[in-house]
Amino acid sequence: MSIEQRMNELGIVLPELPKASGIFSFYRDFGEKFVYISGCGPAINGENLFLGKLGREISIEEGQEAAKNCILNALSILKQNLESLDQIKSFVKLLGFVACSDDFYHQTQVMNGASTLLASVFGRQIGVGARSAIGTNVLPGNIPVEIELILELTDYRKPDPTAP
Amino acid sequence: MSIEQRMNELGIVLPELPKASGIFSFYRDFGEKFVYISGCGPAINGENLFLGKLGREISIEEGQEAAKNCILNALSILKQNLESLDQIKSFVKLLGFVACSDDFYHQTQVMNGASTLLASVFGRQIGVGARSAIGTNVLPGNIPVEIELILELTDYRKPDPTAP
Amino acid sequence: MSIEQRMNELGIVLPELPKASGIFSFYRDFGEKFVYISGCGPAINGENLFLGKLGREISIEEGQEAAKNCILNALSILKQNLESLDQIKSFVKLLGFVACSDDFYHQTQVMNGASTLLASVFGRQIGVGARSAIGTNVLPGNIPVEIELILELTDYRKPDPTAP
Repeated sequence: MSIEQRMNELGIVLPELPKASGIFSFYRDFGEKFVYISGCGPAINGENLFLGKLGREISIEEGQEAAKNCILNALSILKQNLESLDQIKSFVKLLGFVACSDDFYHQTQVMNGASTLLASVFGRQIGVGARSAIGTNVLPGNIPVEIELILELTDYRKPDPTAP
Repeated sequence: MSIEQRMNELGIVLPELPKASGIFSFYRDFGEKFVYISGCGPAINGENLFLGKLGREISIEEGQEAAKNCILNALSILKQNLESLDQIKSFVKLLGFVACSDDFYHQTQVMNGASTLLASVFGRQIGVGARSAIGTNVLPGNIPVEIELILELTDYRKPDPTAP
Repeated sequence: MSIEQRMNELGIVLPELPKASGIFSFYRDFGEKFVYISGCGPAINGENLFLGKLGREISIEEGQEAAKNCILNALSILKQNLESLDQIKSFVKLLGFVACSDDFYHQTQVMNGASTLLASVFGRQIGVGARSAIGTNVLPGNIPVEIELILELTDYRKPDPTAP
């Protein structure tokens, strides 16, 4: 079963491509088969359901949902830049920042929202790699979670530009 | 002299493997010879001697000890996943986060606790690479220091599963 | 036109090499053609014009200037370690930390100061890659911005040690 089929089965619909709020590219491949995905926020189709910080106006459950949305945006970026999501060999590392109050200690739980999604779509072997979960006092635009990713691909095939 | 012999000489005993507090793997190799080690905390054998923040309840000396403990955990993870620590070609980069008060400015001194250990065990050529030291308002579980690492290996030989 | 010629045309003068305030190396190459540059601060020739935090004593314009200075230091480090800045194939990723008040939301604008410089010198294809902009409560020495970089090179040619 392909990754797209698996996502269909799980009822996962990828959002529109996020817009870069600055001078950078969300997708950058390098070396033979590596990709960096810039820090993704949780806004879906340009709408930000989650604004604020953990330990204050955002609950752990909402934070997990926000982390999941960051990954949905990352998958949308990958789909745009690859011929197929099946080219993903490994989610090498996630670096997740959680905006929170000074006494919030559950950054790893929040980040599990991201990792659970990747494990369910790609399986643990491909979807679950290294990860760091870091607290911060504030993130751009008052988003609660921002996640950047490093991936390894099997190859760099690009989408067919003549496809409908 | 092997790295293990050097550690023996220095009286360094590696702790038990840290337990991942979430859905991730502490060790992920990628590309031909690279490894990511997830953000390691300072708990040794499951016990956290250092809880709190620099500039408040944790002194610089304690922070340095905590940073050193993060590296001991990383070395324990590497030993578990490699045939030998002599396969380490380079500690390419350390990214260290220091939980601290808003007016604490000595993150680099704290991180020297990690770098001093690596330099003494591996020598500066292998043990001391790039590094960033970043302050943060809070880290998971109220730990004072978290360090993630990128390494380059000479090869991917794995531990002998039939060894006692 | 070479990168050096382009910098001359733009009136860009690279500062002295920054001094590492700790046990690390500003430059570390790895793999076949990758480089990590350690977190660079904005001090130029040892002098720190910008101290403090965004949302408080540092304006967005000053923060952008500080981010630009971080990149000037990074370019100085690269020039020291390469035969030529023309060996840079891609600025793969910038990870920028912005020290700020808890209600400052414009980290991406601050980081544009770094990206604008890279785009003007190297062009968008080479100079603008992935990027994450993260807020933090404090950075070492009270600097407002710290940026680390990953680059891909065309090759590892070193400066001629017999050159004047």
